[in-house]
Amino acid sequence: MEIQVMENILGKNDQIAAENQNLFAQKGIFVLNLMGSPGAGKTALLEKTMAALKADLRLAVIEGDLFTSKDADRIAQHNVPVIQINTSGGCHLDAAMVQKVLPKLDLEQLDLLIVENVGNLVCPAEFNVGEDEKAVVLSITEGDDKPLKYPLIFKESAISLLNKVDILPYTNFDMESAKTDIRKLHPAAKIVEVSCMTGQGLDVWYDWLRAQTKAKKKRDGGENQ
Amino acid sequence: MEIQVMENILGKNDQIAAENQNLFAQKGIFVLNLMGSPGAGKTALLEKTMAALKADLRLAVIEGDLFTSKDADRIAQHNVPVIQINTSGGCHLDAAMVQKVLPKLDLEQLDLLIVENVGNLVCPAEFNVGEDEKAVVLSITEGDDKPLKYPLIFKESAISLLNKVDILPYTNFDMESAKTDIRKLHPAAKIVEVSCMTGQGLDVWYDWLRAQTKAKKKRDGGENQ
Repeated sequence: MEIQVMENILGKNDQIAAENQNLFAQKGIFVLNLMGSPGAGKTALLEKTMAALKADLRLAVIEGDLFTSKDADRIAQHNVPVIQINTSGGCHLDAAMVQKVLPKLDLEQLDLLIVENVGNLVCPAEFNVGEDEKAVVLSITEGDDKPLKYPLIFKESAISLLNKVDILPYTNFDMESAKTDIRKLHPAAKIVEVSCMTGQGLDVWYDWLRAQTKAKKKRDGGENQ
Repeated sequence: MEIQVMENILGKNDQIAAENQNLFAQKGIFVLNLMGSPGAGKTALLEKTMAALKADLRLAVIEGDLFTSKDADRIAQHNVPVIQINTSGGCHLDAAMVQKVLPKLDLEQLDLLIVENVGNLVCPAEFNVGEDEKAVVLSITEGDDKPLKYPLIFKESAISLLNKVDILPYTNFDMESAKTDIRKLHPAAKIVEVSCMTGQGLDVWYDWLRAQTKAKKKRDGGENQ
């Protein structure tokens, strides 16, 4: 009975996600669904990313949070269009929430849209919002056991960012074990060690975003060229 | 429509939670629902707690995880009864899951039962499993903005443990700001700074657990006396 309800909700979500995806394809916009636990460092990563890429690419951000506009306020300081979605306690973004705010963005003027999901290592991975790819940020302070304990999000993510490596010496995180587990779940996943404090690894992340955005433009053309 | 579904699920959960709660009252067992993000340090805290309290109190643990028995394996090393619940991807424990495993525990021989919920700062706070109190573990590496961003779990928790304070100097966590926000959400909440690495603050936590367990025994009597 409860499983049936779940299937209906997911089925409806997939339909709206497909509508979003069609719209993004028409406009040639690469869309990334950025996920991770509370405090994994998603917003800090986005702030660095906005500063690094806004000269090359036309960017926008959708911020998902239960309450507050704290994250959107941080992104807005970088003079990038940002829309806050408050889920009022909901544990993930869904395709309908994203669809509802898209009219607030000038899609004609966009190359890359990053959707920062609610901080949660479980539920966001179950709901496609119309993105091209998912990414997961795992702070090394969360522990190396997390990929096997929360497998879906790592299976679904084309890229796994292992964040806060600057404080690796003060933790018992086993980097090789975490990478091995992520590769078991998703053999082709790109895995990057990063630190938003020291900048380590961020160029690899920026290059990946640039390449994905370029490939999307080439693939779908889009009216924005 | 979806809200209606949610109310029905929560209503059913509350009913089963009340059944669990009656059973725990009959037996005079204090039950704690321990929550927090993935990697907040819930299991490490429990390992310390088992080692410190098992001489004084009859303890058991229910471990909630999406997959794997990694956490239960860690607890079992302390020679304390432990039951693993795997939610197969479910983002929280509910009262029915807990009810189903209770026959595996010898409730006649218990003073304190700690239920470690799925690592998630959102959903577990919405589902009572029949506990006397909720507790939240927040790692200071997650950031001081988390109480206001995830208010329900802090509102619901009688005690907030601010964990990993040993690495406070390597972070930008503002302790006073976090405490102020937690007090705004729950003025009577007990807030304790702890480190499972150095042991800081753990005695305060142990004393709180001892006092709660004693008070429950006194209040409900229980057949276990």
